[in-house]
Amino acid sequence: MSRFFIRIAFAMITALMAQSAAASSKQTEAASGTAITPESQACIACHAIYTPGIVKDWQSSRHAHFTPAMSLKLPDLERRMSAPTVPERYAKFAVGCYECHSQNPDAHKDNFKHNGYRINVLVTPNDCKTCHEKEVAQYAHTKKANAIKILLENPVYHALVKSTVGSKTVENGKITVMNATNSTLNDTCLGCHGTKIEVNGMKKITTRLGDMSVPNLTNWPNNGVGRENPDGSFGSCASCHPRHSFSIEVARKPYTCAQCHLEPDVPAYNVYKESKHGNLYESLYHEFNFKAVPWKVGTDFKTPTCAGCHNSLLTTPDGAVIAERTHDFGSRLWVRIFGLPYSHPQPKSGDTTIIRNRDGLPLPTTFTGEPASEYLIDKREQEKRQGIMKGVCTSCHTTAMVESHFEKLDSTNRETDAMVLAATKLMSEAWDKKLEDKSNPFDETIEKLWIKQWLFYANSVRYASAMTGAPDYAAFKNGWWELSDTLTKMRDAIDFKAFLKAGESATAK
Amino acid sequence: MSRFFIRIAFAMITALMAQSAAASSKQTEAASGTAITPESQACIACHAIYTPGIVKDWQSSRHAHFTPAMSLKLPDLERRMSAPTVPERYAKFAVGCYECHSQNPDAHKDNFKHNGYRINVLVTPNDCKTCHEKEVAQYAHTKKANAIKILLENPVYHALVKSTVGSKTVENGKITVMNATNSTLNDTCLGCHGTKIEVNGMKKITTRLGDMSVPNLTNWPNNGVGRENPDGSFGSCASCHPRHSFSIEVARKPYTCAQCHLEPDVPAYNVYKESKHGNLYESLYHEFNFKAVPWKVGTDFKTPTCAGCHNSLLTTPDGAVIAERTHDFGSRLWVRIFGLPYSHPQPKSGDTTIIRNRDGLPLPTTFTGEPASEYLIDKREQEKRQGIMKGVCTSCHTTAMVESHFEKLDSTNRETDAMVLAATKLMSEAWDKKLEDKSNPFDETIEKLWIKQWLFYANSVRYASAMTGAPDYAAFKNGWWELSDTLTKMRDAIDFKAFLKAGESATAK
Amino acid sequence: MSRFFIRIAFAMITALMAQSAAASSKQTEAASGTAITPESQACIACHAIYTPGIVKDWQSSRHAHFTPAMSLKLPDLERRMSAPTVPERYAKFAVGCYECHSQNPDAHKDNFKHNGYRINVLVTPNDCKTCHEKEVAQYAHTKKANAIKILLENPVYHALVKSTVGSKTVENGKITVMNATNSTLNDTCLGCHGTKIEVNGMKKITTRLGDMSVPNLTNWPNNGVGRENPDGSFGSCASCHPRHSFSIEVARKPYTCAQCHLEPDVPAYNVYKESKHGNLYESLYHEFNFKAVPWKVGTDFKTPTCAGCHNSLLTTPDGAVIAERTHDFGSRLWVRIFGLPYSHPQPKSGDTTIIRNRDGLPLPTTFTGEPASEYLIDKREQEKRQGIMKGVCTSCHTTAMVESHFEKLDSTNRETDAMVLAATKLMSEAWDKKLEDKSNPFDETIEKLWIKQWLFYANSVRYASAMTGAPDYAAFKNGWWELSDTLTKMRDAIDFKAFLKAGESATAK
Repeated sequence: MSRFFIRIAFAMITALMAQSAAASSKQTEAASGTAITPESQACIACHAIYTPGIVKDWQSSRHAHFTPAMSLKLPDLERRMSAPTVPERYAKFAVGCYECHSQNPDAHKDNFKHNGYRINVLVTPNDCKTCHEKEVAQYAHTKKANAIKILLENPVYHALVKSTVGSKTVENGKITVMNATNSTLNDTCLGCHGTKIEVNGMKKITTRLGDMSVPNLTNWPNNGVGRENPDGSFGSCASCHPRHSFSIEVARKPYTCAQCHLEPDVPAYNVYKESKHGNLYESLYHEFNFKAVPWKVGTDFKTPTCAGCHNSLLTTPDGAVIAERTHDFGSRLWVRIFGLPYSHPQPKSGDTTIIRNRDGLPLPTTFTGEPASEYLIDKREQEKRQGIMKGVCTSCHTTAMVESHFEKLDSTNRETDAMVLAATKLMSEAWDKKLEDKSNPFDETIEKLWIKQWLFYANSVRYASAMTGAPDYAAFKNGWWELSDTLTKMRDAIDFKAFLKAGESATAK
Repeated sequence: MSRFFIRIAFAMITALMAQSAAASSKQTEAASGTAITPESQACIACHAIYTPGIVKDWQSSRHAHFTPAMSLKLPDLERRMSAPTVPERYAKFAVGCYECHSQNPDAHKDNFKHNGYRINVLVTPNDCKTCHEKEVAQYAHTKKANAIKILLENPVYHALVKSTVGSKTVENGKITVMNATNSTLNDTCLGCHGTKIEVNGMKKITTRLGDMSVPNLTNWPNNGVGRENPDGSFGSCASCHPRHSFSIEVARKPYTCAQCHLEPDVPAYNVYKESKHGNLYESLYHEFNFKAVPWKVGTDFKTPTCAGCHNSLLTTPDGAVIAERTHDFGSRLWVRIFGLPYSHPQPKSGDTTIIRNRDGLPLPTTFTGEPASEYLIDKREQEKRQGIMKGVCTSCHTTAMVESHFEKLDSTNRETDAMVLAATKLMSEAWDKKLEDKSNPFDETIEKLWIKQWLFYANSVRYASAMTGAPDYAAFKNGWWELSDTLTKMRDAIDFKAFLKAGESATAK
Repeated sequence: MSRFFIRIAFAMITALMAQSAAASSKQTEAASGTAITPESQACIACHAIYTPGIVKDWQSSRHAHFTPAMSLKLPDLERRMSAPTVPERYAKFAVGCYECHSQNPDAHKDNFKHNGYRINVLVTPNDCKTCHEKEVAQYAHTKKANAIKILLENPVYHALVKSTVGSKTVENGKITVMNATNSTLNDTCLGCHGTKIEVNGMKKITTRLGDMSVPNLTNWPNNGVGRENPDGSFGSCASCHPRHSFSIEVARKPYTCAQCHLEPDVPAYNVYKESKHGNLYESLYHEFNFKAVPWKVGTDFKTPTCAGCHNSLLTTPDGAVIAERTHDFGSRLWVRIFGLPYSHPQPKSGDTTIIRNRDGLPLPTTFTGEPASEYLIDKREQEKRQGIMKGVCTSCHTTAMVESHFEKLDSTNRETDAMVLAATKLMSEAWDKKLEDKSNPFDETIEKLWIKQWLFYANSVRYASAMTGAPDYAAFKNGWWELSDTLTKMRDAIDFKAFLKAGESATAK
């Protein structure tokens, strides 16, 4: 322990020296010879001792070895920075701790004074925008950036959230549902969708360097894709480019998307692993180059990951663009196979709370399957987006094969929608017979079977079909076996509840 | 876009030049110095631009760097080609696009004229046979090669298929089952078993090179192991050696088998991952040599993958053969732990539709567990096959350990069969009491519980035991917990249906 | 085959030569130049031919290249041997076959004469202790070392074991539970917990070298963490350091822990994979150094594996100790999130059979959630252990972030405990109304739902929260969706059973 105190003293001195160095604007260098600002040097002096993991991680990053000025000189296709210029003070330095954590201090309610520097706890898309302007602009319009609002401000989805993750009590045999706590929301829905992080004054913490006063953040840590930040921005670039290496390799590997796109509701990663694409990825990814920009089909990789199909900048081996980079994650998608409760064209706006279907509900389809077309992209936009995706597919496959694949997907969407309709008819029977109460459609026995039909099983079959095949998944695991069995179970449950009800009314007589 | 047209023009010219080159039989070379036929050069000239992914994939393959003539000079154990000779015209060239896609044109209903060449869309086992004669011959007798027939021409299994993946409608509260569509069959059962690919004339497609006329294939793309091809052959070598690198590495890695051998019905990959073998594979495979032929135990790999135990040519580090290569996937298997509904000796023929049990059903055991022995391998053949597998096991483990392991498996087969019998007795009670209708044994509540008992849970426990251990899987995940719980659920369902029936008949009086 | 006999003869001669070499104490060398004892040379002479896999595996191990004497010269932090000295006869030789398999022969009931040498079949912790004294001592007090006793000698848990994995028969429609067989116990619970291995005399086996007489071991092979060995010791170091490379790399990779810590009861690996830690591990582990001792945060690895958080010796890049190595696997844990049936402070003793709760049951909490505090660690010990873990966390994360994380975990424990209490109230209703029989609380319909509530779903949510996030797992997969649905199902089952019972008593009148 005493060894630590000696180290602390040393760190303090180093930090003070770095501060004075900062005053004189003397430049020192990163391992690669890239200059680090004196402010970031000061950060590193202490944090190399106290949080060495993130310091080493940053030191291995591109940010540590590449200045914005160096990036601006690269050919268009090779550049990762989309801003045409950066403020002079950043241009010739590594992108270090202070450069990111000191942006836009006035907007940041989490800005505080830390060992002589004013810094923000969180770095947000609005901060990253200084260099990554285009990506932030694209992202801002996505469903991802609207992910909290979509979930909590749509009364239908909010009812599903509460019914699912709200705590329950049992008194006299009766189950009562309470509102979900922030803690559990962060563990579950908002773990992916993002929490609202607010600053509740300051709090004292005891560290190995002694007591410190730091902003008291609510609902944190969290890296959800729609996180509401203390500067008013939405999202977290670290959802996919985790700190502090902000690696393009990590974002391109399927494990990143797989943190959220998982069974049973969105089994994208599960079905990918069962597909030929997934097999080839797992078998051969050690030979791929996940850091190359642009990403060359056949040379840098032989089978797509999530990023390859959905958002990376792809070129042929000789540099012809196959698909532009996009951080608008719906821009290569025409149909939304995540049924609510049926598959439907992608919504026009990332803010889906504005949608109203013919029944007045904020859902993209009615319970009978009619799409709220006014709020959904039209045929032409669908064709445009499918065209971009087909461009990706045909970089390895023939046009005829790709078209057959998408025709199969159309058929699968129709068939799974029909299975949802079949379940909805049974659900209606239960509601009509007053066996369950439609006012909350998400909290009773038959209702939960119905939810599983569209949220788990129909979705699973569509994902399996779309992502080029996961036959066992679509057959037995969470697919047709369950789609069929759920109808049988709903029928049984209706019969049971009707029998019980009849018995009760007979007894009542 | 205009850039593309310039590229198209260039490609056309290159292709024409290649054609004229073909006429003069001038040889050019692959990256490795291996000559490529002029016909294949013509393919590559265009496809390097339009489908660069597969061209690069092929260029990284052994086919691109090794001529049949070179292969024929290798020592027996190192050779991957089993044909003793090949036609003169192939001998001194890389195995390129045209060499494979132009074989046996008269047999191929999918043969068509494409930019001046007659080619087949599909390459089938009958084409691969030119060089890989022995493998194709072995494969032809397997259950895999018979996989469509087994499923669709056995009325019992076909009824299960229809009940599971046939679409359902609900009218007046009644569920009606329809025949499964080809599209859904391809998404599910036939995704693994293989579809029947037929040619429905030609169709026009619009590509970046303009409109083209190509064969209109049904039920395609598909890579199922028993695929029926337009030349009348069965299977697809690309099921496990995916195009266009046809890599032995991919086939030897477990992800390939894992595309189909998955929970809940055949959880081979799931239990492998939980086993010590799987742990060692995942921890150390980066040190293994997956390309070496023969595959040397201890030197090239330290723990088996699926291929290691089931079909690769294995030798000791100094080259003594431990097990011969086989593409007859049952040849190291004595007992079939995939219960139908009970475990049983492996069938004699890969075409299991010929089996009749004592009750006249096309099943390898009766509902009470009696094997249809006439159609199953005898004790002596079982011992022979087990002997081959033991040879593999004892290359790392002592004889005593291996024997104890197989004794445990015997016990597990007996016990899980007893659990299936227990469920079948309950099933019989339900059928006898007319609570459910035996004429289709796969579509009602209690029947579906019974199916899960043998198809999901008993199978899972046997796979876990056979593949050296997946305790959590066999205990809780899909094993004994479920085997036991299913009996309880069947009992409850019988009581409920009997009560309901009694109530109805009381009401009827 | 005849080739084998020539090889056998050669091996025999080599073995005899090695024996005579042994007599003259002549030293020969391993590949690295490390001397191998003549006895081990004799082993290798034959086994390189007959079980080449394990010989090659050992030859790649540290044991083959590093003598105890060499190890003793290493700086403390780099040494893997904890014994301060070793017997002279081992000091200057590689740690070979004979060195390990000949230890403590008098204690080993599995000691036998094999080709002229007396060896033990099993190598046990008591043998490994010669060099790894401290690790064995730490391990001896863990729940792992007590794992068989905990399961089979606690009547409550034993009843759960029997109900779950005991075979069932159905006679006249009635389900009868039998005791679980040793074979099935080894397949399931004891696959992880460990079997009792006893010696039942000798048995003859037929090997390629001819007939041999070897100890007849029961319940073997098995590598469970609490295995009872024929020398009276408990555990198997090979559970995590599998033979015969005994690799620290394997033990540090998550696949090792994942052999047992899996869904649905202990889904540590499942939730790790969904977490940011797991994502980074899977994306970047090819860059990590899994063999370095000590294990340097940020330099050797960028994200923890199970071992990193729970037991490895961790230092900063410049060698300051962050956490000491421990093989007492509870020593960084304060709360036991594996609920029995509620979360509770870690037990004081690894032998949990001594615990009695206020109701007299051998459980750490009562059915209403009161902890058996006398047997559980107190607040101060909890803080101490949490302090060690926080030391690990803060090597990458800020103190404020770490504290917020643990506060969320506290909240999650409270909420999931409340969901278990809700289920227990319904369970009590069912027991009170005599719908099910409490004497065995683990074998009926409602009881099984109740078990799933605490053993599967509450545990899953806690693991997801503790291990930094697996939102989909905690929401839908095996978490809150199921926690809520199970209450609904319990309510339905109570109503159904009550109705049935009322109907029966009405009929009886």
